[in-house]
Amino acid sequence: MAPQFAAPSKSPASLSVENHRPFAFSKRAKCLLGQEMFKVLDRAREIEEAGTRIYHLELGNPRLQPPLEIIEATIGALRSLNVGYTSSAGLPDLRRALAQRYTKVTGRSVRMENVVVSPANLLISQFLDLTCDRGDRVVLFTPTFPSYLAATQHIGLQVVEVALDPATGYDLREEQIEAALEARPRAILVNSANNPTGAVYGQEALESLAKQCHQRGIWLLSDETYAEVCFGRPFFSLSALSYPQLVVMSSFSKIFSIPGFRIGYALAHETVADKMALSNSTLFSCLPAFTQLGCMAGLGVLDEYVKKTTDHFANLVGECSAVINASGVLGCAMPQAGFYIFLDISRTRMDDLTFSSHLLEERHTAVTPGRSFGRAYTTSIRIATCGQREDVIHGTKEIIKLAQELIG
Amino acid sequence: MAPQFAAPSKSPASLSVENHRPFAFSKRAKCLLGQEMFKVLDRAREIEEAGTRIYHLELGNPRLQPPLEIIEATIGALRSLNVGYTSSAGLPDLRRALAQRYTKVTGRSVRMENVVVSPANLLISQFLDLTCDRGDRVVLFTPTFPSYLAATQHIGLQVVEVALDPATGYDLREEQIEAALEARPRAILVNSANNPTGAVYGQEALESLAKQCHQRGIWLLSDETYAEVCFGRPFFSLSALSYPQLVVMSSFSKIFSIPGFRIGYALAHETVADKMALSNSTLFSCLPAFTQLGCMAGLGVLDEYVKKTTDHFANLVGECSAVINASGVLGCAMPQAGFYIFLDISRTRMDDLTFSSHLLEERHTAVTPGRSFGRAYTTSIRIATCGQREDVIHGTKEIIKLAQELIG
Repeated sequence: MAPQFAAPSKSPASLSVENHRPFAFSKRAKCLLGQEMFKVLDRAREIEEAGTRIYHLELGNPRLQPPLEIIEATIGALRSLNVGYTSSAGLPDLRRALAQRYTKVTGRSVRMENVVVSPANLLISQFLDLTCDRGDRVVLFTPTFPSYLAATQHIGLQVVEVALDPATGYDLREEQIEAALEARPRAILVNSANNPTGAVYGQEALESLAKQCHQRGIWLLSDETYAEVCFGRPFFSLSALSYPQLVVMSSFSKIFSIPGFRIGYALAHETVADKMALSNSTLFSCLPAFTQLGCMAGLGVLDEYVKKTTDHFANLVGECSAVINASGVLGCAMPQAGFYIFLDISRTRMDDLTFSSHLLEERHTAVTPGRSFGRAYTTSIRIATCGQREDVIHGTKEIIKLAQELIG
Repeated sequence: MAPQFAAPSKSPASLSVENHRPFAFSKRAKCLLGQEMFKVLDRAREIEEAGTRIYHLELGNPRLQPPLEIIEATIGALRSLNVGYTSSAGLPDLRRALAQRYTKVTGRSVRMENVVVSPANLLISQFLDLTCDRGDRVVLFTPTFPSYLAATQHIGLQVVEVALDPATGYDLREEQIEAALEARPRAILVNSANNPTGAVYGQEALESLAKQCHQRGIWLLSDETYAEVCFGRPFFSLSALSYPQLVVMSSFSKIFSIPGFRIGYALAHETVADKMALSNSTLFSCLPAFTQLGCMAGLGVLDEYVKKTTDHFANLVGECSAVINASGVLGCAMPQAGFYIFLDISRTRMDDLTFSSHLLEERHTAVTPGRSFGRAYTTSIRIATCGQREDVIHGTKEIIKLAQELIG
């Protein structure tokens, strides 16, 4: 029997009116920011659809070829029709594999009960939702990853922005840790290796931050999404410590060039991990098994793969930083990880939004305005150098040309 | 250069203690319910891992072969490495295809700006998050889909349960609509075709509900996940009406037997759809392009595919209902859609949790306890008949045997 849809009766449909009362959205709906770089991406796509080539430096959307093992394992799982529900906490085999990896990397025993699989961007909201009530204070070190600002704003948290010093390459120092603790926050978010600055924080500072959060009962989220693509300084993972209120998160998006898989994970105390799994179950039931199996296959070639890609990122981000600093019109700190550069455009005397808009409309180069990374950064922009080499080099030159034109 | 992880220094790690202060979770964390059937699934898997075969009737996890067009299109997108970010609102082509489909089905013009792609289970939380503040009243018609209870509880909403009458086959009647409106809720959730009862509501009742919600400024979410698998009564989609505070949602999970894809969508007024896209951007950035392309390919064969599967579901659910009602020990209303049966086990004088537990541990048959569908349903269980035919028939017989044993 073919399913039938009944036709609507005429009268009620005609009741639809456009001049209705204003939408009564919730408080949280009114606070939704979204992510600025996705808006830039949408505008860039409009221009592209009208036939103009755009140089994409706005989004950390790596275009390197991902490990074929990931693609093949995902396809294999699809071919065997592994398309049903799976566990809310994540595929047990993937959780076990991650526990093994972190046991090896940290030298302490990490168990699958400490691991929860969830999209990394969502993990930020989940962490804040589980640990903070509306109105609570949260510390962000700025410039900061825009998703932290969007998530805190959505939940109605009070953000204390603790600025890192560009003169130290935006390093985390005792000074900023003190300022963070003085704010007496419910939670602190820390991100080393950092987006947007490319800074890698020192082990001593990270251990000190974690220890003091533990002593004061402050929740700490350590976002280590770029851990595997460090080149300027050895990376220290807070997963080496097992404080009960410390949650470490990471993602497969960047290190494997598969942001479209939308798979990340958190490492946490078992009680916290259980809550996160309950949050998964409540929000989205579970993630696809086939993408998780793909990521699991990736773990087998991780070290070998990131060795290659880290070299690539280091070279490209190094080359771009050098060109920028040699330009005489723009400046940036030398990134030690990842593929972002946080640029100072203050000499152009143009604010970030206007500069970015000119750049996109006239020079077909998409970047992210600085204020996405904290309200103070209206004379900065971020570029992502993870796209095609030619695009990145060309886009960087366009940025410099615009700055030169403005400075005259 | 190979990325290095620094070794932890010894002292701070040793600070980790198990007898720490109690976890200071947020109010919302304390209200997380998760989904009971996922807990049942986890326990069933434990038993399976110990080597015992389990008959799965707990989860609406369809085991039919999905359209190969979906699998092939997904694989094709993976092979062409379509693994980057995409638009937060969903792949434009998929949104356009859905707009076309709903324009055809409803006879009114639905545009891509009215369509947002998001995991269907998450859409429930997103809808409530956008429309309701903590403490607001929400009406659910019971028995109800457990995710509504989990989402309302998590957000801190006050749920008014309006019971449907088993004597009418759990149909939505004017009586229940009046009770719902009298509660003066901020939002109402309606689900036709229904999970867990299999009821399909009449067009007149649905139009009346929508019209009165519109007149009173009440948000209405119409969950039409089982629209395409109706067999007992013509299905009426509220997407035929375009009230500004009416949101219609659906999912590809059930109709295509691909719950693991985690792709659903909402149809809404453009202003509401924009908010939902912002919510997507804030929470999870975007969904994979390859799974969305798979679903798009599925739309091309939807009518043909569901014709077959609906026959299958109708036969199996019909056969099981008949066996249950002929047993003399258990009873159920005859489903008109989908693959769920909501069973009355009151004659066994055993509550739902105890009955389900006995069933799983002794008779290796997993079902969902009635109270997952509303607090009043402690003498009911739900079975899902979407698995392998033999499993379903065997499981149903085990349920009857246990009831017979208990009634003696």
